[in-house]
Amino acid sequence: MKKYSFKNDYSEGCHPNILEALIKTNLNQQSGYGDDDYSNEARELIKNKINDPNADIHFVSGGTQANLLVISSILRPHESVISAETGHIFTNETGAIEATGHKIHGIVTDDGKLRPEHIQSVLDSHTNRPHQLKQKLVYVSNSTEIGTIYQKQEIKELYEFCKSNDLYLFLDGARLGQSLTSEINDLTLEDVATLTDVFYLGGTKNGALLGEAIVITNDKLKEDFGFHIKQKGALLAKGRLLGIQFLELMKNDLYFDLAKHSNVQAMKIKSAFQDKVFQFLSETFTNQIFPILNNYQIEKLSQNFDFYVWKKIDSESSAIRLITSWATSDEIVEDFINEIKAL
Amino acid sequence: MKKYSFKNDYSEGCHPNILEALIKTNLNQQSGYGDDDYSNEARELIKNKINDPNADIHFVSGGTQANLLVISSILRPHESVISAETGHIFTNETGAIEATGHKIHGIVTDDGKLRPEHIQSVLDSHTNRPHQLKQKLVYVSNSTEIGTIYQKQEIKELYEFCKSNDLYLFLDGARLGQSLTSEINDLTLEDVATLTDVFYLGGTKNGALLGEAIVITNDKLKEDFGFHIKQKGALLAKGRLLGIQFLELMKNDLYFDLAKHSNVQAMKIKSAFQDKVFQFLSETFTNQIFPILNNYQIEKLSQNFDFYVWKKIDSESSAIRLITSWATSDEIVEDFINEIKAL
Amino acid sequence: MKKYSFKNDYSEGCHPNILEALIKTNLNQQSGYGDDDYSNEARELIKNKINDPNADIHFVSGGTQANLLVISSILRPHESVISAETGHIFTNETGAIEATGHKIHGIVTDDGKLRPEHIQSVLDSHTNRPHQLKQKLVYVSNSTEIGTIYQKQEIKELYEFCKSNDLYLFLDGARLGQSLTSEINDLTLEDVATLTDVFYLGGTKNGALLGEAIVITNDKLKEDFGFHIKQKGALLAKGRLLGIQFLELMKNDLYFDLAKHSNVQAMKIKSAFQDKVFQFLSETFTNQIFPILNNYQIEKLSQNFDFYVWKKIDSESSAIRLITSWATSDEIVEDFINEIKAL
Amino acid sequence: MKKYSFKNDYSEGCHPNILEALIKTNLNQQSGYGDDDYSNEARELIKNKINDPNADIHFVSGGTQANLLVISSILRPHESVISAETGHIFTNETGAIEATGHKIHGIVTDDGKLRPEHIQSVLDSHTNRPHQLKQKLVYVSNSTEIGTIYQKQEIKELYEFCKSNDLYLFLDGARLGQSLTSEINDLTLEDVATLTDVFYLGGTKNGALLGEAIVITNDKLKEDFGFHIKQKGALLAKGRLLGIQFLELMKNDLYFDLAKHSNVQAMKIKSAFQDKVFQFLSETFTNQIFPILNNYQIEKLSQNFDFYVWKKIDSESSAIRLITSWATSDEIVEDFINEIKAL
Repeated sequence: MKKYSFKNDYSEGCHPNILEALIKTNLNQQSGYGDDDYSNEARELIKNKINDPNADIHFVSGGTQANLLVISSILRPHESVISAETGHIFTNETGAIEATGHKIHGIVTDDGKLRPEHIQSVLDSHTNRPHQLKQKLVYVSNSTEIGTIYQKQEIKELYEFCKSNDLYLFLDGARLGQSLTSEINDLTLEDVATLTDVFYLGGTKNGALLGEAIVITNDKLKEDFGFHIKQKGALLAKGRLLGIQFLELMKNDLYFDLAKHSNVQAMKIKSAFQDKVFQFLSETFTNQIFPILNNYQIEKLSQNFDFYVWKKIDSESSAIRLITSWATSDEIVEDFINEIKAL
Repeated sequence: MKKYSFKNDYSEGCHPNILEALIKTNLNQQSGYGDDDYSNEARELIKNKINDPNADIHFVSGGTQANLLVISSILRPHESVISAETGHIFTNETGAIEATGHKIHGIVTDDGKLRPEHIQSVLDSHTNRPHQLKQKLVYVSNSTEIGTIYQKQEIKELYEFCKSNDLYLFLDGARLGQSLTSEINDLTLEDVATLTDVFYLGGTKNGALLGEAIVITNDKLKEDFGFHIKQKGALLAKGRLLGIQFLELMKNDLYFDLAKHSNVQAMKIKSAFQDKVFQFLSETFTNQIFPILNNYQIEKLSQNFDFYVWKKIDSESSAIRLITSWATSDEIVEDFINEIKAL
Repeated sequence: MKKYSFKNDYSEGCHPNILEALIKTNLNQQSGYGDDDYSNEARELIKNKINDPNADIHFVSGGTQANLLVISSILRPHESVISAETGHIFTNETGAIEATGHKIHGIVTDDGKLRPEHIQSVLDSHTNRPHQLKQKLVYVSNSTEIGTIYQKQEIKELYEFCKSNDLYLFLDGARLGQSLTSEINDLTLEDVATLTDVFYLGGTKNGALLGEAIVITNDKLKEDFGFHIKQKGALLAKGRLLGIQFLELMKNDLYFDLAKHSNVQAMKIKSAFQDKVFQFLSETFTNQIFPILNNYQIEKLSQNFDFYVWKKIDSESSAIRLITSWATSDEIVEDFINEIKAL
Repeated sequence: MKKYSFKNDYSEGCHPNILEALIKTNLNQQSGYGDDDYSNEARELIKNKINDPNADIHFVSGGTQANLLVISSILRPHESVISAETGHIFTNETGAIEATGHKIHGIVTDDGKLRPEHIQSVLDSHTNRPHQLKQKLVYVSNSTEIGTIYQKQEIKELYEFCKSNDLYLFLDGARLGQSLTSEINDLTLEDVATLTDVFYLGGTKNGALLGEAIVITNDKLKEDFGFHIKQKGALLAKGRLLGIQFLELMKNDLYFDLAKHSNVQAMKIKSAFQDKVFQFLSETFTNQIFPILNNYQIEKLSQNFDFYVWKKIDSESSAIRLITSWATSDEIVEDFINEIKAL
């Protein structure tokens, strides 16, 4: 029998509502390239939720694609982007951003979160113009790659700092659902739209087969974005596939229900580890947790479950990464908690 | 009531078998990024059909993506690619190839097909090294963007010319199914694999929701291709979506049945026009036809059907483009033919 | 004894005034990177000559460098440039422009000169947005690569067309001196500045060791240009080398005297061929001429002189290219004319 | 009266021998683009000095140009380069390397020097293929940007580590003369050639008007390099300008004499500071020194001399940077030392 995998949140297909919608709409003829009825309807739902009828919304296949599209569409050749060193663009996208010609200034942080002082330090060390790059964009992720989230006040300070320093703020929302439904969150989707220049809502890690919804709220960044999508090979002929999914996810807040479910399942597992007084690599309140186990315990849990050994702590112990998803059932969580209790 | 559209072959969703397979496999946990069971099984089916167990096969979302990936992975900065001016990469991909740093030498042809003498002429006018580019790759499409197809002897001559001139041959198969099932075709899929260095099988225009299968047969082009896929934002987390579709399309030759169906429907319509002694912009035997109609006839047909007016011939008449697909029903074709008869 | 070469206009070093100035200034300490006294003084002279105190002027090493800098600084990723197929950027710069990510639309012309209708035809065939590139820049050379020049009315029409179509006009002046001192010229340097958005004055082919002076007159193109120069490796630490040369060339109109000298020498040779009723590949009035000779005559002239056989006309004859320069002496011209007379 | 500047080693023109050679050769006609007699002769001298008749040698204008040419010619799109964070390419070239599509992994070091363990740590954190870049090149400078130099054993260990890990080693020799003539140096030019795959000899900072000599010793990196030079706008029409200079510099070891002179002048000043028990930011034995002075002392020295205040140490004191050159006279050094003594 196959082990259950906590390796990531994209191991299954998609939420059943999406499959149903695909079936129901399958033979309706539609315009190609994102100008279909479903995509347009999905755009309206998102605009309503962020209360911005003028936002531009583009659906693309995945996070790396969204990141390289947004960043390369904004920056001129001599401009650069600032990110945490843990940022997905800095370390896990095979140089996708640099391949479009732009440097990423990587910043060491404690918790994966950028703060104004981090950005200021980059600006301060890049004053020797024209021998050094001009910083123009700040990239953050929410939730971050290590499971932490931004509070409203933190995003607000970042955004205001950016506006004072002629920088754009871009928020990677590959796991935006999880961050906005975290028990410690105080941001709304509308806040995210108001306090950034561009962001995206991740579908791939929250119940879709594929798809991220890029939302551009700053007028200066809207022009000609469609050209970039096509040029980078990101324009699907059957854009309906993306539109139908976001339509289903946005209807009745399914998107947030699925994200919350994944958080809740992770928090249950977290509690079980806490009850046994395990330590964690970082304190998280979303669908990723990083408990530290000794080698024997890791081996034991590995017998029935799959997960990544994330970071070696010492010769005796390591942090593991456990990720839950919209599809993680109560039954599986219960089984796993029983194994934790038995450690 | 909505008009029926002959505008393209990606107006509907996908073949029902695919939807069934998506439902059946939905909750099976799978590895991400194309290393799932379905993708691996689909790869095996393709390898069998081309009789090359060592081929490397990668599934990506669309044609522009496949084109830019293959071309940019092959060429070094000072190397260029040769294409017909009607080639999709030359004119309809928003400069996707140039955006990766490479020039396309566009060649005027009668019928969208490259011949050795075309390539020779480019080589002859680029001998002033290092002031001129080094040509390294030839790009062809089958069927071409204007519906014509290559005969086996033609591809063979091209391939041999390329081998004699240290050039790679890349075949864009966005509509490969249609070409291989055309009534005048004498190529097999195995021939295509043997007589090129790399090609792809298009799914988007032949019954899939999205997806092209890149097949690399030349060992020199295989190394590290996965890095390029990731870097260009083309690596789907849920690669299973592509694998499942190609698995269904390859099983029992569904791929070829669907392509043939689209050809047959187009040929029926072509006959109807021929019966009325209409002329055509080019002679095609695939799922695209370009009859020349007068303005009145165009207006008349437009009342119940959608299509592109492709090229103005004179003030009185234009060529229109009609495309059929795997989903074009006999009933629709019959209705349309009746309208042709009534012209 | 070595043959005299008419192969190009960069076979010798530089005008003696420049060497003298290098010696005289050699040990003066100066700021680096183009902010030295000589460069600033040279900028003032040029601004005076074009009657534009607000022009931005940057000195760089060569023509390809100037072309790639200007073009890549202007265009966003999805924008393209239009050029004659004979344009230096299209065919003789090893894909330098495409290497910065941008397509050049090459246009077939009779005489190397672009006209509004050429540009209009590109615009007309690129209306399928976002699947096709957005044209943003027009590139012309004066004199052209085949020795022809633009009349004032022609440049004016081009510029006005560009302004009406949201296009920038860039003039490559690698041989601008020769064009402006041609016997048929009616343009002034100030006209060139007024009727383009950016252009450059070529030094390399007119008496300098190296150097082109890029002049940006359109305010929108001025910002941050220095960053591009540095990024592309074009910023000389000892920018004084370029400044000193342009200072000498601009003083007392040496630049124009040298250019005129090269034209006059070519025209004398042209007359000698005309006297013998030779035909020419194109009619030129600058320092390049393309007489058509039979094979025997070519062999004969080759005994004492070097030149390129430019284009085969038929099995019996070819056009040759003869280029004169600031350094071509009266004596040499006389010798050569004597050989022509003897043919 | 103007202050004497210790700001850098490119404030003056060039060594008088070079000016003399320019005058003497000025009217000799030569082939363009680096294929002139002087360039070829200079190549021979360099090949002799490194004892490698098969080396490929290319002359280009400056350091940033050399760096971007070498790196972009070597790396494929998914490959990256490793450098110290103080490396010129990482921080002072306006993103020139990233503009060619490649990430630089920046490493924090104590002394500007890379060691095998630094490189190993990058390799260790990039094992998640294809989601992370493939490291292919190591970039070092000698002397480094902070004036330190490599010992032979250190370069040897680096080179062997690179060979064991399928990495190329590239040495930026913008100040190679200074490093090889430092009092603590134990490397020869031949060692540098043997223990790297490619390096360059800097002329700009050692008595030339401009120019760096790129030396490629690894056969795999030689092919087609000339195309890259042209494409990046780095191929001078009058390549003789570079050839003549390197010919003069290489003759009778003028290159090394000039470099040694600059070192000696710096060491005299260093001694004067040491005599007064000043501290230094780093211990250097080349032509750059970084003494730490209090604010009053800095102001005092600034009255007659120009230099950069390099790094603030605390509110009371800063490190300044003093650079000497081939042109720094004994008299100036004596004057400056007198001022130090008087502090």
